[in-house]
Amino acid sequence: MKIDINSDMGEGFGPYRLCDDEALMTVVSSANIACGFHAGDPETMARMVRLAKANGVGVGAHPGLADRQGFGRREIPASHDELRQQMLYQLGALTAVAKGEGVPVAHISFHAAMGTMVNREPVLADLMMDAVRSIDPNLIVFAMPDSVIATAAARAGLKTLLLFLADRAYDADGKLVARGLPGAVIKQEDALRARVRQFLRHGTVTTIDGATRAMPARSILVHSDTPGSLDLARIVRSEVEASGATVAPAATIIES
Amino acid sequence: MKIDINSDMGEGFGPYRLCDDEALMTVVSSANIACGFHAGDPETMARMVRLAKANGVGVGAHPGLADRQGFGRREIPASHDELRQQMLYQLGALTAVAKGEGVPVAHISFHAAMGTMVNREPVLADLMMDAVRSIDPNLIVFAMPDSVIATAAARAGLKTLLLFLADRAYDADGKLVARGLPGAVIKQEDALRARVRQFLRHGTVTTIDGATRAMPARSILVHSDTPGSLDLARIVRSEVEASGATVAPAATIIES
Amino acid sequence: MKIDINSDMGEGFGPYRLCDDEALMTVVSSANIACGFHAGDPETMARMVRLAKANGVGVGAHPGLADRQGFGRREIPASHDELRQQMLYQLGALTAVAKGEGVPVAHISFHAAMGTMVNREPVLADLMMDAVRSIDPNLIVFAMPDSVIATAAARAGLKTLLLFLADRAYDADGKLVARGLPGAVIKQEDALRARVRQFLRHGTVTTIDGATRAMPARSILVHSDTPGSLDLARIVRSEVEASGATVAPAATIIES
Amino acid sequence: MKIDINSDMGEGFGPYRLCDDEALMTVVSSANIACGFHAGDPETMARMVRLAKANGVGVGAHPGLADRQGFGRREIPASHDELRQQMLYQLGALTAVAKGEGVPVAHISFHAAMGTMVNREPVLADLMMDAVRSIDPNLIVFAMPDSVIATAAARAGLKTLLLFLADRAYDADGKLVARGLPGAVIKQEDALRARVRQFLRHGTVTTIDGATRAMPARSILVHSDTPGSLDLARIVRSEVEASGATVAPAATIIES
Repeated sequence: MKIDINSDMGEGFGPYRLCDDEALMTVVSSANIACGFHAGDPETMARMVRLAKANGVGVGAHPGLADRQGFGRREIPASHDELRQQMLYQLGALTAVAKGEGVPVAHISFHAAMGTMVNREPVLADLMMDAVRSIDPNLIVFAMPDSVIATAAARAGLKTLLLFLADRAYDADGKLVARGLPGAVIKQEDALRARVRQFLRHGTVTTIDGATRAMPARSILVHSDTPGSLDLARIVRSEVEASGATVAPAATIIES
Repeated sequence: MKIDINSDMGEGFGPYRLCDDEALMTVVSSANIACGFHAGDPETMARMVRLAKANGVGVGAHPGLADRQGFGRREIPASHDELRQQMLYQLGALTAVAKGEGVPVAHISFHAAMGTMVNREPVLADLMMDAVRSIDPNLIVFAMPDSVIATAAARAGLKTLLLFLADRAYDADGKLVARGLPGAVIKQEDALRARVRQFLRHGTVTTIDGATRAMPARSILVHSDTPGSLDLARIVRSEVEASGATVAPAATIIES
Repeated sequence: MKIDINSDMGEGFGPYRLCDDEALMTVVSSANIACGFHAGDPETMARMVRLAKANGVGVGAHPGLADRQGFGRREIPASHDELRQQMLYQLGALTAVAKGEGVPVAHISFHAAMGTMVNREPVLADLMMDAVRSIDPNLIVFAMPDSVIATAAARAGLKTLLLFLADRAYDADGKLVARGLPGAVIKQEDALRARVRQFLRHGTVTTIDGATRAMPARSILVHSDTPGSLDLARIVRSEVEASGATVAPAATIIES
Repeated sequence: MKIDINSDMGEGFGPYRLCDDEALMTVVSSANIACGFHAGDPETMARMVRLAKANGVGVGAHPGLADRQGFGRREIPASHDELRQQMLYQLGALTAVAKGEGVPVAHISFHAAMGTMVNREPVLADLMMDAVRSIDPNLIVFAMPDSVIATAAARAGLKTLLLFLADRAYDADGKLVARGLPGAVIKQEDALRARVRQFLRHGTVTTIDGATRAMPARSILVHSDTPGSLDLARIVRSEVEASGATVAPAATIIES
């Protein structure tokens, strides 16, 4: 079995770095590259594309709201058309920077508040997915299982890759437990390894209230913007490899 | 004969406007659309693309330095690769926004300091033209006759459309007389009309020192960021039409 | 009687202008100067201060959210302390630029979303007024009658100058009728003149439902960011002068 | 003897950090706080002021060019008046944020390209120093010995505190050896300790060509934006304390 490991990359700009992109790029198989709005700049994007190319990592767009100060986490009011144009702008920008390196953009993964806003409104999600398809009907949409985005992508005829967040607790409805709540983030290495193994062997996750839920994901998202994220990514990768699965970019999984 | 009239468009953003884009779009045949760095934003770009589409105007990218404060007129130090990525980023962004409206990007025209910097260094110009070609080998490069950019575009196998600035004085070498100098800008309507007629009939321009020089251009650039620019554009168009020439977008001229 | 006429000024930056500040500065007696966040830049601020000084106009800070794209009109989530620091930062910036021209800052008037957010939360308003007082206890706070800001300013021991918006309809509760609703903006010159006269003679305003309400204001706010705003300001000033009142800056009214 | 140790602080913003400000604030005695142009934001500035207050560290303004992308290191063309207003704006902004915490701004230290530009033109330096004095004639100007800024500050009647860069090589003229050149940065702990000791005991520095030069500084600048900067600062402080000198903020040195 092939499993993708993806992470948000290039989320610094100018003098700033949020993680060790060079090291993390040797661990993941898909890179969600910040496109200059919540983070990133043209030169950083090109650097990420070159790193991805050198490591056989799939390149994806990671569009967010135009909000460096708030790192794209603040919901800034915008019309549906504004959000659509902001997404198209960023997707196109990365597409050209990647094309300059001879690399195609394989997927798209929404960042923070932009993702939250799209995931709340099916009409907006449909608009966004139609826009994605207008750029490239083969783009793979990264989404949480049962999310508004996953449904809209399917409706638009786009391929999706479903995500599992190994270090985050899920509630009984399969939603992420909010970060502020106790137990929301799994930090102990043993617990984390156990969750990855359960996901790989059984395709399930144990929810915060002890129930077992199906987790039909094919990609594990590892965070890049927290201390220890590189270690987390390596733990996840080692478990995937120990399980006999192959770490592989999104495109190879969708094709298979 | 077909002649293109082009202008820089969408050079406001948010609440700001530099010209009456709606009116100007009915006068020009090619629009150089600001791509969000020196001016413009995704929504403004989409509005420009829609206006261009509605008026049969050709869409072009107008990339500049990331400098809204200085309107892209200040030379901000950057490496060759940074300039290349900045250009690719903006070209890609407009390409996607335009594609979302079902419109292709036909040409590229550099803005202010970015153009000046590229026009000064043949090595940089070659790098930029190779990058343009990597995105779309059919993109038409707008350039001044005998300029470094025109030469590099030809070397890269790209098509060029040469520009005539009807309201600017030229020196004996065919360079623009710097804006600060006396006589640099032609403001009287009669003089302006005479220059357009001379260009259309004879393919020449009278330099500031009274000599006659060949002006092998096929597109007239009309400014959009000065008071009276809309009137200027209308004067130019009326002269072109009075001469029996047809005002037509860049792509139709290059193909013909 | 002295009456102040105030307007938001310097709400462009770099190449952009929202109004003819030079002309408007000859009509108003208090200028609310944008401080670089929603609009304005250091050079524009200095230009406004010089214009105000030359015209005997009072200088005030007009802080807003850090949002040029949305012109400070979008409510961007922020903690109370963030809003407090953003206000202090802008007030201090203008204070120094004005001091460089030998001019004191006399008043403060909140812009758009920042004002809305402060006017909704008494606890935040108290925090903001305490912060204003920590900078200068003599600063005059511009506020709508009966507003949260007016109340908090009084609680903090700050002087207030109450505002009348001559070209906007009020509802039965003395609140502004929302811009989108019919009749919200008074555009006919005759009606506008009648409202100013009624305010000056009787200290009242006729609400949108025909009732007469007290309008205990001493300053008339004229908009600067709409077409015709200069004409509106001139109409208001001519009525004030025709009534026998004197147009005078906020500080001279508060002192009297 | 009292010696100041100063460092640039708060040079991140939003999600970004360039150094461990909390730890570094326990080592230095003067903090040059970024003012929101090349780095910093209102909330970060307030955080720095609170940290400085808690640690008995002197607060200074660290104004730079409005260039987060280039971290204020790129020389962006600007008129003298623009630079003056940019400096005033930032100085005033920090002054108000600090005043909100009950803390005075004691000094000013120019950042990167802004410092370079001012240090190259005596006329500009005079303009800047006059502007500094107009805000507060007691502000202490941080400057390199024999620099244009030091001379202009003296001419304006402002107090200066001269800087020694312990980890940077000086040439025969007392100028810093450019970073790119071999030996420009002293990285070995032993060599660094020896330089600090020589400076403290003899008031001299050994230049890159082996000569001994007077170093009439009273403050040691430790960098904060390089890996290991915290260790460097601790080494410097330990040598100062071992020498019997007292680490003390700029204001206490100037007064003594």
